[in-house]
Amino acid sequence: MKAEIIAVGTELLLGQIVNSNAQFLSRELADLGIDVYFQTVVGDNVSRIKTALDIAVHRADLIILTGGLGPTQDDLTKNAVADFTGAKLSIHQPTLEKITEIFRIRGLHMAESNARQALIIDNSAPLRNETGLAVGVALTHNSKHYILLPGPPREMKPMFENEAKPWLRTIAKDKCPLYSKVLKFAGIGESSLEHGLLDLIQDQQDPTIAPYAKEGEVMIRLTTRAATREEAMIKIAETETKIRSRLNAYIFADEDISLEESLVRLLKKGKLTLSAAESCTGGLLSHLITSIPGSSEVFFGGMVCYTNDFKASLLQVPRHILEGEQAPGAVSPETAKLLAEHMNHVTGTNVSVSITGLAGPTAAENKPVGLVYIGIARQDKPTVVEKIQLSGNRESIKLRAAKQSLYFLWKMLANPSDLH
Amino acid sequence: MKAEIIAVGTELLLGQIVNSNAQFLSRELADLGIDVYFQTVVGDNVSRIKTALDIAVHRADLIILTGGLGPTQDDLTKNAVADFTGAKLSIHQPTLEKITEIFRIRGLHMAESNARQALIIDNSAPLRNETGLAVGVALTHNSKHYILLPGPPREMKPMFENEAKPWLRTIAKDKCPLYSKVLKFAGIGESSLEHGLLDLIQDQQDPTIAPYAKEGEVMIRLTTRAATREEAMIKIAETETKIRSRLNAYIFADEDISLEESLVRLLKKGKLTLSAAESCTGGLLSHLITSIPGSSEVFFGGMVCYTNDFKASLLQVPRHILEGEQAPGAVSPETAKLLAEHMNHVTGTNVSVSITGLAGPTAAENKPVGLVYIGIARQDKPTVVEKIQLSGNRESIKLRAAKQSLYFLWKMLANPSDLH
Repeated sequence: MKAEIIAVGTELLLGQIVNSNAQFLSRELADLGIDVYFQTVVGDNVSRIKTALDIAVHRADLIILTGGLGPTQDDLTKNAVADFTGAKLSIHQPTLEKITEIFRIRGLHMAESNARQALIIDNSAPLRNETGLAVGVALTHNSKHYILLPGPPREMKPMFENEAKPWLRTIAKDKCPLYSKVLKFAGIGESSLEHGLLDLIQDQQDPTIAPYAKEGEVMIRLTTRAATREEAMIKIAETETKIRSRLNAYIFADEDISLEESLVRLLKKGKLTLSAAESCTGGLLSHLITSIPGSSEVFFGGMVCYTNDFKASLLQVPRHILEGEQAPGAVSPETAKLLAEHMNHVTGTNVSVSITGLAGPTAAENKPVGLVYIGIARQDKPTVVEKIQLSGNRESIKLRAAKQSLYFLWKMLANPSDLH
Repeated sequence: MKAEIIAVGTELLLGQIVNSNAQFLSRELADLGIDVYFQTVVGDNVSRIKTALDIAVHRADLIILTGGLGPTQDDLTKNAVADFTGAKLSIHQPTLEKITEIFRIRGLHMAESNARQALIIDNSAPLRNETGLAVGVALTHNSKHYILLPGPPREMKPMFENEAKPWLRTIAKDKCPLYSKVLKFAGIGESSLEHGLLDLIQDQQDPTIAPYAKEGEVMIRLTTRAATREEAMIKIAETETKIRSRLNAYIFADEDISLEESLVRLLKKGKLTLSAAESCTGGLLSHLITSIPGSSEVFFGGMVCYTNDFKASLLQVPRHILEGEQAPGAVSPETAKLLAEHMNHVTGTNVSVSITGLAGPTAAENKPVGLVYIGIARQDKPTVVEKIQLSGNRESIKLRAAKQSLYFLWKMLANPSDLH
C-alpha cells in the first residue's frame, strides 16, 4: 500500500513550526510496511487542500491529513475532504457532549465555534481524541482511504496510535500482519550503537532492524511479518539474542517505555523510595519521574538547589566547598556527594540522587560547559559519584544529564547485588 | 511571487529526519515577501522528482529544491532538474579544483563519484558552498526560477543566505517585503481569544491577523507589506491598538518569547528573587524557569514536595491540614498558602509560588482530576491563592498548571502597584 501525508497549516508554510507530524507518521507507516512516496504541506485554504487531495489520490491508496480540525475559521480540513469526496458533515453527538462537559467543568463559556470540533464526515469512522477536543475521521471512498488527525502532536500521536492504527489494520488485513518488538537503550549514543551492530544492520533482511534516537534514549525496533504473534516472536528472538550478546548492559526495556517509567517500575518492585537534589537540571529529573502515573508511591520529592545559597542554607554544603579560589566548587564530586548524602539524610529515602553541572551557555568555575557530576547516596552504603562530559545546547545538556542520572539509578537498582 | 519548496530525500519519507530545511526556507521566504503555498517531500528517484517538478511548475514561480546534491548514486536532484528543463550537466571547474584540493590537504583518496558534487546545469548560476563540497545551482527556464541547495542544514543555510538570497533579490526586485509583529498571550485559550477578536479576524485585510496556540501559550502574528519597517509598524500599530483595547491583560510580550522568559526578565528588572514549592507539577515549573539562560540571578531554587511526608517534614504543613476526613487535604487553598509561605520563609526570596493539585489519572481526596491551587507569598504582603480547574491528560495538566502559575506571577509583577 502507498501512502501520502498531507499536513495542513499556514503556520508550516510560514516556517513558524516544523513538520514533526510528517516525520512521526512516516516512521509509523514504515513500521507498518506502508510506503510513503510523497509528503505535502498545504495552507488553510479549501481549494488548495482539494488540489493536494486530487494529486494525492492519483498516486496513493491512503491519504493521512494532519491539522485543520480546530475550532477556528481557519480549520477547514474536514470541509475540504467532505467536498472532495462528495460527502456531508454532521455533528458527532458523543464528541459534542464531551466538549460541552469540559467547558462546563472548567466553568468557561463555550463558543459556538467549538462545536466545529465535533464535526464528522458522513459514513466515516470517528477517531476518539483522548488529549484534546476535535474528533478525528477515518473513511474509505472509491477504494481510497483517508485519515484526518489533529495538528498538535500531543493529540495527533495518541489518536494515531490508539484509533487510526487499529483502523488501518482492518483495511490492510489481506497481508500477513507486521509484528514488532522494541529494545530500549540508555547510556549509549545512536552512532556507537549502530557501530556495534553494523554488520547486523547491513545484512538485515527479516526481521528488519531500525534504530531511532530520541531525547536521550535510543531504541531499536525489530519488525517482521508473520501469520501469528508467536511465529513473529520466534523470528525476532534470534536477532534479539545477537543484539543482547553485544549490548545487553545498555538495554533497559524490551518494550517502548521511557527510562523514567522503567526506573519507577524497578523502585516499586523493590519497594524503594527515591529523592533528588537537582542543580543544573533545575527540576527536570523530578518532572520526568513525576510524569509517570503512580510515581508518588516511590518518589518522595526533591530539591532544586539552583543557587549556592540554596545548597549552603538548605542542603548544608559548607561554603568552603562551594566558594573560593581553592574550593572544589559547586560543580565538583565533593558537592555532588554532599548534596546526595544530605538529601538522603533529611528525607530518609532508600536512594537519593544529586546532579550538579554546567548547562551553559556560559562556563563557570574555570570548568567547561557540559561537565556534570551525578551522586547517588543510599542508606548504609558508600556514596557513588559519576562524572560525565556532555555537549550540545542548554536544553540538550539538561535533558541528557537528567536521562544519564536515570540510567545510573536504573543500572544500580537493576543489579540486585547492589540492593542488599 | 509564489514559491514551492521540494525536499528530496528518502530519509525524510522514512521519518528518519525531520524536514527542518522546509521550515527554515519558509521563514526566510516569508521575510522576503515570497508566498509559499506548498511544500513537498519526494524520495531519491528521478521520475518522482520530475513528477513533483511538473506539479510545482504549474503552481509556483520559484521552486527551491533541497537535498540530493551529494556524491552517491542516490543523489539525483541535478539530473532530474536538467532532464526536466532539457538542459545538460557539466563540471564546474572551480568547484572540482576545490574538492580535489580538499582531498589532497586531508591526505584522502578522492573517489570518482566525488566529482559529481561539482556538476552544474548549463546556463545556470553556481551557488558557492562555504561549508561543504557540492556546488548549488540557480537557474531561470521558461520564466520559472529554480534553486538547488544541499540537504545538510549546515551547508544549506549559509548557501541560501549568502548565495541564493542575493540572486533572489535580483529576480524579485519589484516587490515590497513583508514585516511581522508578534503578540503573545497567556491565561486565555485560543478559542476564547479568537472569539474576542472575531470581527477583526473576519474582516482582516492588511495587516493579516493569524492566531496560533502552542504549549499553554497563544500568539497572534500581525503581518503587512511595506517599503520600510517603519511604514509597516505604523500600519500594524493601528490593529495592535484595537487588540490591546480588548485583551491587553493577557498580553505578556510583543515579541516571540516564552512566558518563562518574560517572567525572568521582569524579575531581573525588579531585582527580585523567586522560589517555588511544587507538588503536582513535580518540578516542571522550576525546569521551565531554569531553561532560561541567566535565570540563576533571580531563581533561588525550589522544592518538589511531591508526597504528604515531604510537605509535612520539610515544608511544615501540619498533618491535620493534610490528612483526615475533615482536613482540607493536600489539594486545598490552605495547603497552597502554607507551602508558599513556608517556602518564602526558609528561602528569604521576594516571591514564592506553590502549586498543589491533581494531575491524574486518578482522583484523590474526593476532588476532581485537574483541580489545582496556586499560592503566591511575598515578603510583608498577604498571600494570594488562585484556584483553577484544568482538563486533559497528566502531561497537559502539569504543563497548564505550570504555565498558569507563570502567568499569575507575571501578572502580579507586571502590575507595579503590587510590588510596593
